[in-house]
Amino acid sequence: MSGPSSYRFSQRLSHVPTSFLGELFRVSSQPDLISFAGGLPDAGLFDVEGIRVAAEEVFAQEGKAALQYTTTDGYLPLRTYIASRYRSRLGLFADPADIQIVNGSQQCLDLIAKIFVDPGDHVLIERPGYLGAIEAFSYYEPVFDPVQPLDGLIGPDPDSVRKLVTDSNPVLWYGIPNSQNPSGMTWSPGIRREIADMLDGTGTLLYEDDAFGELFFDGRPREPVKKWLSHQTIMTGSFSKTISPGLRCGWIWAPHPVIEEFNKAKQAADLHSNLLSQMILTRYLETTDIDLRIRETARVYEERCHLMEEIIDDRFPVGTHRTSPDGGMFLMVTLPPGISSMDVFSQGISKKVAVMPGSPFYVDGGGGNTIRLNFSAVSLDQISEGLERLLQVIKSLQ
Amino acid sequence: MSGPSSYRFSQRLSHVPTSFLGELFRVSSQPDLISFAGGLPDAGLFDVEGIRVAAEEVFAQEGKAALQYTTTDGYLPLRTYIASRYRSRLGLFADPADIQIVNGSQQCLDLIAKIFVDPGDHVLIERPGYLGAIEAFSYYEPVFDPVQPLDGLIGPDPDSVRKLVTDSNPVLWYGIPNSQNPSGMTWSPGIRREIADMLDGTGTLLYEDDAFGELFFDGRPREPVKKWLSHQTIMTGSFSKTISPGLRCGWIWAPHPVIEEFNKAKQAADLHSNLLSQMILTRYLETTDIDLRIRETARVYEERCHLMEEIIDDRFPVGTHRTSPDGGMFLMVTLPPGISSMDVFSQGISKKVAVMPGSPFYVDGGGGNTIRLNFSAVSLDQISEGLERLLQVIKSLQ
Repeated sequence: MSGPSSYRFSQRLSHVPTSFLGELFRVSSQPDLISFAGGLPDAGLFDVEGIRVAAEEVFAQEGKAALQYTTTDGYLPLRTYIASRYRSRLGLFADPADIQIVNGSQQCLDLIAKIFVDPGDHVLIERPGYLGAIEAFSYYEPVFDPVQPLDGLIGPDPDSVRKLVTDSNPVLWYGIPNSQNPSGMTWSPGIRREIADMLDGTGTLLYEDDAFGELFFDGRPREPVKKWLSHQTIMTGSFSKTISPGLRCGWIWAPHPVIEEFNKAKQAADLHSNLLSQMILTRYLETTDIDLRIRETARVYEERCHLMEEIIDDRFPVGTHRTSPDGGMFLMVTLPPGISSMDVFSQGISKKVAVMPGSPFYVDGGGGNTIRLNFSAVSLDQISEGLERLLQVIKSLQ
Repeated sequence: MSGPSSYRFSQRLSHVPTSFLGELFRVSSQPDLISFAGGLPDAGLFDVEGIRVAAEEVFAQEGKAALQYTTTDGYLPLRTYIASRYRSRLGLFADPADIQIVNGSQQCLDLIAKIFVDPGDHVLIERPGYLGAIEAFSYYEPVFDPVQPLDGLIGPDPDSVRKLVTDSNPVLWYGIPNSQNPSGMTWSPGIRREIADMLDGTGTLLYEDDAFGELFFDGRPREPVKKWLSHQTIMTGSFSKTISPGLRCGWIWAPHPVIEEFNKAKQAADLHSNLLSQMILTRYLETTDIDLRIRETARVYEERCHLMEEIIDDRFPVGTHRTSPDGGMFLMVTLPPGISSMDVFSQGISKKVAVMPGSPFYVDGGGGNTIRLNFSAVSLDQISEGLERLLQVIKSLQ
């Protein structure tokens, strides 16, 4: 054995798309590069001092416990906090026993696919859909069925979903109803009710990924689909976009039979998530006005998003379209026909501006002239300068 | 959908054995219970103060970075530390680029099976074998081939391995050469060489799990099989047994083509491991005499192990046999024929003493009169009192 060809990798690897996220992380470290390509929150908004104090208190009062093994489900006071926040924010009753802590909500994608998806099973996903979900699910060899958005971008087209549910009996329907990654689209209240009614009693579980629900620019929570489809909905959340991604703390809230299988799979995968971080985070959440901080974060992101929209509308060539996010961290641009976003990506790197090409988000091909722009990790000056560079790249390709 | 039967779980779940680890965690929280059943290090030996100081320095100097996303491979200074320790302890050259950080070495079991094991592939495992590996691998539906130990317990029987490698062309051979869990057995230097020579050039990768290699009672490192079979060996390690399991920091060191696929799988599974913990741990390792602390931990465990051995030899009924660990955290006892370790487990709980029944460690059944005893998490007094309770249970079953 002396080279890659001699390692007997599993067949499932042939179903996994070439990864973009790793490439992006590498590219993003170039000096002077302005990157709209990643998905990072602004580290300048992290409450380093507040989290430091929380850590100090955990070490002083419960250091030994924080450094020891714990149970797979996660730190009970943290699960209790999450449950009570569902109640206070959304009026939903969640039993802490039905919530489990994971290493960021990305881990739920892997484990849910593991316990539900057999090779050849159908999985519905938005078109465009979250790339991290496509990559995680791919290891379990599903058939992806893309769900078309409604014109006007107020959610997935219910007729398209109904037809797919009937025709291919999908085991899961994965979506991000709040400020979706990559589109920035939010499902309307009417669409949510319609989707819930339509799925009720079918064999299709809804996987409602709520990574961005706290980051609406208007600060107003949106009622999740789970409200009307509780027994048939898996919901996941994350502290990565609101407090800190480095702590790798997210959660799943699901019907109890699902949680039981999820717990076994999580235990086999890595026993439990980092306990020190769970305890620091809990202490921090219990002693901080989180809402105030999140409002401030969303306000900063809103300003950046609006500047981005303004520049695109004023300066970009005729035939450019964009989405209108009301929260989250991403906006999606459709370039004039004939311009390849892969060319924009590679030309952009040489001009010191990075974008995320849209095509990896399309499980059926397509999206070849779309790009995803992140507005959370760039300053207003960087947005102005970066979009100017991007405009030059686009013009050079016209 | 109103009950578990209506959820369409994946077929692979039918291959997963009923879990014991979760049950043990629950049982272990009973008051007054003396537990030899778990696998916890002694929290009293954790350097809470040293780790607290390291955390303080990380927050003061690199707080923002520690709370942000990072790359999937892990914190470079930590990977560099691990590489340099392989050099200083074992004289092995490891490139930090071939090392990746994971959430405790348990995560390697899941991800390695994911990238190598197709349903029906053969996987060799020691008899008895590590239960966490059996559980993690099971999700990928391998056929387990148990490898018999040599009489004298100096490692797996090379003839048995040779026959299995030839007959079933296993994709992996998973083993714990140093102070194995559950047996406490250590492979002899001769066996290691023989295994390396035998596997060389076959299609079978060696997965050398080194969770306990730092905890030899005599403090002397043993040369890993990877030394003679580098291109064909995956090696994993952990800080859980030496510094803290709550931080969930372990690593994999593998040939580069393996690391590349591992990296993609890790990224899809949870993006990266907790960065704050990686940075705290690195700072701690760079400023502490780790060897001194590990020697002290091993000395405490040795004393406990020897007391356990003494009591078993002096007091337990004729026909009882035990292993003779030279490190690690576990010792295995074979009870006189006819005594069921499952009965010992359930009777033991009512007498406030917990043991781990041996049978879940045997992929081919068997081991029905064996029990695993943990000596790291119990005091000398608890060992005396707990083994006395255990003896009464065993006598009552004779």
